[in-house]
Amino acid sequence: MLSFESDYTEGAHPQILQKMQETNMIQTTGYGTDDFCRSAAEKIRKACGCPQAQITFLSGGTQTNQIVIDAILKPFEGVVSADTGHINSHEAGAIEYTGHKVLTLPNHLGKMDPGELEHYLKTFFADGNHEHMVFPGMVYITHPTEYGTIYTKEELAAISAVCRSYGLPLYLDGARMGYALASYETDVTLKDIAEYCDVFYIGGTKVGALLGEAVVFTKNNEPQHFITRVKQHGGLLAKGRVMGLQFDVLFEDDLYMKISAHAIRMAEILKNALKEKGYRFFLNSPTNQQFVILENSKMEELGKEVRFSFWEAYDEDHTVVRFATSWATTEENLERLISLL
Amino acid sequence: MLSFESDYTEGAHPQILQKMQETNMIQTTGYGTDDFCRSAAEKIRKACGCPQAQITFLSGGTQTNQIVIDAILKPFEGVVSADTGHINSHEAGAIEYTGHKVLTLPNHLGKMDPGELEHYLKTFFADGNHEHMVFPGMVYITHPTEYGTIYTKEELAAISAVCRSYGLPLYLDGARMGYALASYETDVTLKDIAEYCDVFYIGGTKVGALLGEAVVFTKNNEPQHFITRVKQHGGLLAKGRVMGLQFDVLFEDDLYMKISAHAIRMAEILKNALKEKGYRFFLNSPTNQQFVILENSKMEELGKEVRFSFWEAYDEDHTVVRFATSWATTEENLERLISLL
Amino acid sequence: MLSFESDYTEGAHPQILQKMQETNMIQTTGYGTDDFCRSAAEKIRKACGCPQAQITFLSGGTQTNQIVIDAILKPFEGVVSADTGHINSHEAGAIEYTGHKVLTLPNHLGKMDPGELEHYLKTFFADGNHEHMVFPGMVYITHPTEYGTIYTKEELAAISAVCRSYGLPLYLDGARMGYALASYETDVTLKDIAEYCDVFYIGGTKVGALLGEAVVFTKNNEPQHFITRVKQHGGLLAKGRVMGLQFDVLFEDDLYMKISAHAIRMAEILKNALKEKGYRFFLNSPTNQQFVILENSKMEELGKEVRFSFWEAYDEDHTVVRFATSWATTEENLERLISLL
Amino acid sequence: MLSFESDYTEGAHPQILQKMQETNMIQTTGYGTDDFCRSAAEKIRKACGCPQAQITFLSGGTQTNQIVIDAILKPFEGVVSADTGHINSHEAGAIEYTGHKVLTLPNHLGKMDPGELEHYLKTFFADGNHEHMVFPGMVYITHPTEYGTIYTKEELAAISAVCRSYGLPLYLDGARMGYALASYETDVTLKDIAEYCDVFYIGGTKVGALLGEAVVFTKNNEPQHFITRVKQHGGLLAKGRVMGLQFDVLFEDDLYMKISAHAIRMAEILKNALKEKGYRFFLNSPTNQQFVILENSKMEELGKEVRFSFWEAYDEDHTVVRFATSWATTEENLERLISLL
Repeated sequence: MLSFESDYTEGAHPQILQKMQETNMIQTTGYGTDDFCRSAAEKIRKACGCPQAQITFLSGGTQTNQIVIDAILKPFEGVVSADTGHINSHEAGAIEYTGHKVLTLPNHLGKMDPGELEHYLKTFFADGNHEHMVFPGMVYITHPTEYGTIYTKEELAAISAVCRSYGLPLYLDGARMGYALASYETDVTLKDIAEYCDVFYIGGTKVGALLGEAVVFTKNNEPQHFITRVKQHGGLLAKGRVMGLQFDVLFEDDLYMKISAHAIRMAEILKNALKEKGYRFFLNSPTNQQFVILENSKMEELGKEVRFSFWEAYDEDHTVVRFATSWATTEENLERLISLL
Repeated sequence: MLSFESDYTEGAHPQILQKMQETNMIQTTGYGTDDFCRSAAEKIRKACGCPQAQITFLSGGTQTNQIVIDAILKPFEGVVSADTGHINSHEAGAIEYTGHKVLTLPNHLGKMDPGELEHYLKTFFADGNHEHMVFPGMVYITHPTEYGTIYTKEELAAISAVCRSYGLPLYLDGARMGYALASYETDVTLKDIAEYCDVFYIGGTKVGALLGEAVVFTKNNEPQHFITRVKQHGGLLAKGRVMGLQFDVLFEDDLYMKISAHAIRMAEILKNALKEKGYRFFLNSPTNQQFVILENSKMEELGKEVRFSFWEAYDEDHTVVRFATSWATTEENLERLISLL
Repeated sequence: MLSFESDYTEGAHPQILQKMQETNMIQTTGYGTDDFCRSAAEKIRKACGCPQAQITFLSGGTQTNQIVIDAILKPFEGVVSADTGHINSHEAGAIEYTGHKVLTLPNHLGKMDPGELEHYLKTFFADGNHEHMVFPGMVYITHPTEYGTIYTKEELAAISAVCRSYGLPLYLDGARMGYALASYETDVTLKDIAEYCDVFYIGGTKVGALLGEAVVFTKNNEPQHFITRVKQHGGLLAKGRVMGLQFDVLFEDDLYMKISAHAIRMAEILKNALKEKGYRFFLNSPTNQQFVILENSKMEELGKEVRFSFWEAYDEDHTVVRFATSWATTEENLERLISLL
Repeated sequence: MLSFESDYTEGAHPQILQKMQETNMIQTTGYGTDDFCRSAAEKIRKACGCPQAQITFLSGGTQTNQIVIDAILKPFEGVVSADTGHINSHEAGAIEYTGHKVLTLPNHLGKMDPGELEHYLKTFFADGNHEHMVFPGMVYITHPTEYGTIYTKEELAAISAVCRSYGLPLYLDGARMGYALASYETDVTLKDIAEYCDVFYIGGTKVGALLGEAVVFTKNNEPQHFITRVKQHGGLLAKGRVMGLQFDVLFEDDLYMKISAHAIRMAEILKNALKEKGYRFFLNSPTNQQFVILENSKMEELGKEVRFSFWEAYDEDHTVVRFATSWATTEENLERLISLL
């Protein structure tokens, strides 16, 4: 069956598998201290324009969010997020498991508003009684968001400015970062992200890797004994090379951007086809996830031929579903999908 | 440089990489619900002689210990371990991070003594005041142990019997299980382990996989909503297929046992060579890790040509070091090492 | 300076101190196993009409909420609360510290709506993908609420019915329960609360005790080894008698209700005086907390003579402040306050 | 029945109750910001010779240990304790509950040896691989110990020196501190403790208070937002005055030392009587707890007339039991006990 269910339905980009084959019997040291990791980190530093950045490779998005947030926050602090933030909704309480509250602001098509953030922080710190409350200790945003939307450079700069004026680190969850950077509608580059954020991660799992996310501390601000924290959370792989190697390939010859651009091209074709056929969109997504409102009967029919994601009920008769393209989407499969629609 | 530092210095067994290549573009669902995981689980059930076993694939040993132990224990319970148990010494406090105490018994060459276990439990539950203490809630053993030693079938049966008489689940950490099962000195089979233990894991990372450990609940006793617990601990990979596929290969045509047997054959050759050359052993290990007492000057000299693990200081002039063989050890490299010794 | 800042500005009701004096040199066993605790528990059982209830005395409200919620929830569950619930706003993250998320519903003058609760639970459990989310595991309400409002018997019954249909325990935070039970506008009795709730606590600290809250498990549903859980949270006092004795006095001859009724009488006089003088109320509170909208200049002036609580900014020129009466409010002080207004 | 079971069998010292009566209707602010707390803190600073000390009042020993240790340790650190330390044995895992490991050294009659501490720290930090281990982050000692023994000034100075050379804070659990300070065999003063330790607590519950322990940070080293941490752990009482007032009385006119001295005098009389009657001591305790080896038949007989604590089985026919004196022990009761022995 055809699947547009997500951007993690296939294995890895073929160049990754090829490099794995070629280097398989090279002996390395463990736990991320190997040359693959070193080389990948160096390439990421260059791509970010951030020669001092500290890079760690972790295995998945929830793990990354959990470890980074727990490592940054002081014990009496929580993390500020849009209410639709992945950490607030779909990570099984992984943040609260570490003892920290997710402090929510309303979302605007999945995004946090800089003005509302400032208002919240101003009010919090103005109130003399906040010693009985959870202190905001960092800000979490996703780019692209859970709805496929993206921040403009101006918005990102504004959020960053608010964070700095209150001394709060800004953390960007880039599980699908490639698809934001390659969007036709973006003015935000990887270097911008490195500049505006204190820490972020470059998603691998959903952008061509078998597994792996690259955490980037941009301001020489990696928490003390970060590797021990990673171990303590169960996140340290003995064969760290598995992740280093993949990012080494993805950041060679701009592969990360090339495959992201492919996914966006596929998404745009799909989007135009949907528009032409008169489908209603739940919102305008400029990235690889497209949210469409389907009649329930149509949804059931279509579900016999193609897999997609149930997103949420729209009304009694309609449902929001998601179609995702990726580095692996073929033109042939896309045509099959369009013909089914 | 030659390395006998550990059993995780290379990538994956070639058959694993080949299967990855062949199946790379197959589309699957995420989070361990795919056909690779299903097939691997079925093969493991057969190998264990345990048709009801519930199998979950996790990414590394610390993560597995943390999740399994936290999922089994009640909040007022701790886990009983030999003081040399990996969870007590080299996991950066990953168990305590989940809020549980590691309750220690003395080790005997890395092993727990069934009689001492029984005495501890008897005393604990006899004492009327134990409501102010941490309740023993499960028992943790490693096989092979951190010192490469192995339990006999009789010892395993005795520990299991004590556990059952007190209603405590027995959990076996099998990070290097293959090397115990393939030892020339063992009388313990995988089916014995499945019979005597309530839960255990079959180590992949150190026995030929890129990453991955297979958790086996043997008595239809998987904790409620275990997948949610895994997610909450940051251990759920989107592309669960990565681990399912590897175990599917390892449990096809007995590959797991074949490559373990190779490592043992290499270890025995090394052991005999060391004996012949008059080296002193720290203890007798019948598995793939060999612990040798080296003069410090010899250690330094050897360290220029080959990597091995520092284990612990023996006295002012001597050090215990570890040489590990694995599925990947070549006869050629072994000969080079022997000639250097 | 006169204070209407809260209901915990004085020591304890004089009868409590007298009993302390009289019984001071009686020797008792520790940790809540003494006769004072036993006698108090028996009286509370009778007052609740709940002969099987299990009673534990804890020292404060945050501690009680933390321990009860952590002891009831399974590890993958969170607690459902109105967004204004004390556990969500003013307990410094004490619930999240235990690893559990507070799942919020909108408040209606501080109260949770049974229909909205049902809709939330229905949607949650209908959605097939909820294994990646925090499971609702219990429901938390406050009575009176943080805004002094109270549930009607019908509302309480409705919330209880929803909880039971989904198998979720209902927990009622009664930090100021006496003031709700004594309200002129209530139709809810202590026996109703015991019937509709699975666990609740009777507040002592704010209703005449030096310290102490009585946790009541109503359905023979006290969590396993609850005392050990209390100890683990640092909540077990060696001299448990301190709390037992106080509740023994408070539940002798209806003292708890008598002193609560006094506070309500004082609050009604204050409310009428405020109305007559043309003050604006933030909302209608039928209990001992009165929320008034003051001009900022008026607030400053008044603040020179009397202490009250800053609640929240109303607009640029106005502030919501709280006046609280209690068992200890004297008519004389009340008259002084009214003359100052 | 006569009780020598513990030092917390009665209420509070009469002067405390008297002061409670006298000040009961004084209105104060909440959460430890009142004048009683301020006055008590000032007196404690003077008694410690430590004008900069930061004082917080908490309600019990387990809570105090939990909060202080959790507030001091970094997330990757554990606390070093003798294996008999209260936090390692009889606090239901309250330290591990906060995510931290208790790292144990062997005890010597309940005490930690400075040389063994130094050896442990030296070895730990010398070993290059300690990033996979729990870092020692502070040292915990009890004075008197769980066996009633006490440190000499020289021992205390030596432990303190080791701690400082490794940059680890030294924390002293003084649940029964008064009885150590008043011991006939001690050369350690409260000022010594304040000098050698970075933080300690002065036990109230077991030395004449209804409840309450005074935490003293001696080096202007109170953790950031400590009150919020206390609240987060459920340890912040609304009526903080309850504890402030008691310590204000205990540190007026040397009452704390006077009542401790009384308990020691009672203990010495008991000790001499036991010796004369030929009882065997488990060890020599110079404080208010006396550990005696009783024949089991004798123990049962005595148990009909007097309560004491079961400590541990000595051999098949003998048991170690504890008799405790306190501020409240009367000469009359002591004589009755002696005549029963």
